[in-house]
Amino acid sequence: MDRAVEPAATAPLGLDDVRAAARRLHGVVCRTPLLSSAPLDARLGHELVFKPEGLQHTGAFKVRGAYNTLAWMAERGALPQQVISFSSGNHAQAVAWAARRFGVRAVVYMPEGVAEVKRRATEAWGAEVRLRPQRAQAEAEAQQAAAAPGCALLPPYDHPQVVCGQGTATLEALEDGGVEERGPDAVRPLYDAVFVPVGGGGLMSGTTLVAKSLDARTAVVGGEPAAADDAARTLESGTLFRWEQPPSTLADGARTLSLSPLTWSILRTADGIRRVDESDLLRWTRTLQESLKVLVEPTSALAAAAAEQWLAEQDGPRRVLLVLSGANLDADTMRAIWAAR
Amino acid sequence: MDRAVEPAATAPLGLDDVRAAARRLHGVVCRTPLLSSAPLDARLGHELVFKPEGLQHTGAFKVRGAYNTLAWMAERGALPQQVISFSSGNHAQAVAWAARRFGVRAVVYMPEGVAEVKRRATEAWGAEVRLRPQRAQAEAEAQQAAAAPGCALLPPYDHPQVVCGQGTATLEALEDGGVEERGPDAVRPLYDAVFVPVGGGGLMSGTTLVAKSLDARTAVVGGEPAAADDAARTLESGTLFRWEQPPSTLADGARTLSLSPLTWSILRTADGIRRVDESDLLRWTRTLQESLKVLVEPTSALAAAAAEQWLAEQDGPRRVLLVLSGANLDADTMRAIWAAR
Repeated sequence: MDRAVEPAATAPLGLDDVRAAARRLHGVVCRTPLLSSAPLDARLGHELVFKPEGLQHTGAFKVRGAYNTLAWMAERGALPQQVISFSSGNHAQAVAWAARRFGVRAVVYMPEGVAEVKRRATEAWGAEVRLRPQRAQAEAEAQQAAAAPGCALLPPYDHPQVVCGQGTATLEALEDGGVEERGPDAVRPLYDAVFVPVGGGGLMSGTTLVAKSLDARTAVVGGEPAAADDAARTLESGTLFRWEQPPSTLADGARTLSLSPLTWSILRTADGIRRVDESDLLRWTRTLQESLKVLVEPTSALAAAAAEQWLAEQDGPRRVLLVLSGANLDADTMRAIWAAR
Repeated sequence: MDRAVEPAATAPLGLDDVRAAARRLHGVVCRTPLLSSAPLDARLGHELVFKPEGLQHTGAFKVRGAYNTLAWMAERGALPQQVISFSSGNHAQAVAWAARRFGVRAVVYMPEGVAEVKRRATEAWGAEVRLRPQRAQAEAEAQQAAAAPGCALLPPYDHPQVVCGQGTATLEALEDGGVEERGPDAVRPLYDAVFVPVGGGGLMSGTTLVAKSLDARTAVVGGEPAAADDAARTLESGTLFRWEQPPSTLADGARTLSLSPLTWSILRTADGIRRVDESDLLRWTRTLQESLKVLVEPTSALAAAAAEQWLAEQDGPRRVLLVLSGANLDADTMRAIWAAR
């Protein structure tokens, strides 16, 4: 299989593409609220605003990209009879959920060992799940299957319309925070920085398009498990780093093998990726649940841990946005999070 | 101490009083979103809409009543220098939170054995906590202390303005569901029933005022621990039932000793109280957390367990509203909830 090993040429995507995605998603996805915690802000000495996409349909932001892509295909009269995908979990549910809305069959290849709650939910939304021993194998078989007539691939992040869909989470947060009333000439940006978890880079790419377009002074920073730092390595070295095997981390949404050329090209315009230890992941997952009163999966804690690192380097109070990716946790993970007294 | 043993005469409170409370609370409390779960609805065969007051400031609906009462006092030029209260937890935090907003000192008497997370949070909002061995003692001392010059009592439920404040949660839910666009002549009410947990009856009283005024066909049903069924006994017998000792139940918000004359008088116009076993409490707390992706404390599960009982008696699909009271849980309780595989 051919594989590009360079970032894509200038990304042709911009704010207008994300706005078009937002129009497609209007009334379909939840406009999730913004949350904050006065005690947490007091403790950190900064103002943190959270976009809890765990409250989104299927419990994760992923429906934004999946639905937008199918809607975009439908606009072009190119809706397939069967949509094929591969995923470690949240994207699988999103594809199943979106495909049902378009009356399209969904087949999702998943690696064995995905969170049980995510596999079951994917089936509950009506998709056929095909388990494969290896993630790379699941990915390769999905791409083969998608080549059949009447089929189309809906990849978890390597698609412009997936990226634009994911960007709508940050667009909503900026709109609801009043970015348009402030205008680009405000003394300070609405948020000094936006933090997101990084797996394949779809959420961070969409976030970068939106945040940088609306105010170039806004830093966009990703959080990635130190044990799964393919994106950080790629950006630092300028060479696409790809794992042979999915790395082991509590953040199951970050067990992706590599960035794609598309997400790589966009992330080069962002403000870097912070490495997060597993102990910080666990600590922040608990802290977020306690402070915000919402379920939060460990992948989401990557944003908070990255923010903690970044904020510690600033010379004064900052106001920042954190996109929390999802809330699909197994009971085992919940017990691990709440084990400490 | 004199104690009325009859329900209050015709309650002088109505929808306009709750609307006045809503105006005082506008921009101060969170307008919490409405949540639902398609998988849960599919499983139950009914449409359930949730008002998750765990996302409210201090993690519970109680700030509505506490802030409204202080605002009402302030309007009358009767804001005390020191506000005194007693509580098993969530009201304590609410008093502390509201008092801080009015620049008023707060002293809260709590029984020993309150949830640690609730005691610490009360202190964090700036209140002085005085622990007393018994709940009845905490209550009596608070009433004594409040008699001093410059002091005023802000009781957890036995105050008209507390009741009206609590009613704003349901008012918001009905407004956001479009009750005004439908009007009172709609073929069916917006919600066939509204379910709430019952401790001292403040939330259920406010809910009854609102729901019955906007559409008398809406059933208002409470859920109370079977092990702490003072409200159910009072309504069934027509005699105020009062515990000597706080009953033992996982639902710490329902460890109240009795209804008050005020809440008793209003609850007589509602549609009864369902008794909930401790095992159902535990099961529903977990189910709500899994389905809605928000933290939910066991007291909130009383509403869901009551709804389950009521829905099982209906002859067809119903659309119902459940007010989830709060999300302040100790780590021990979280572990108990998630212990089962």
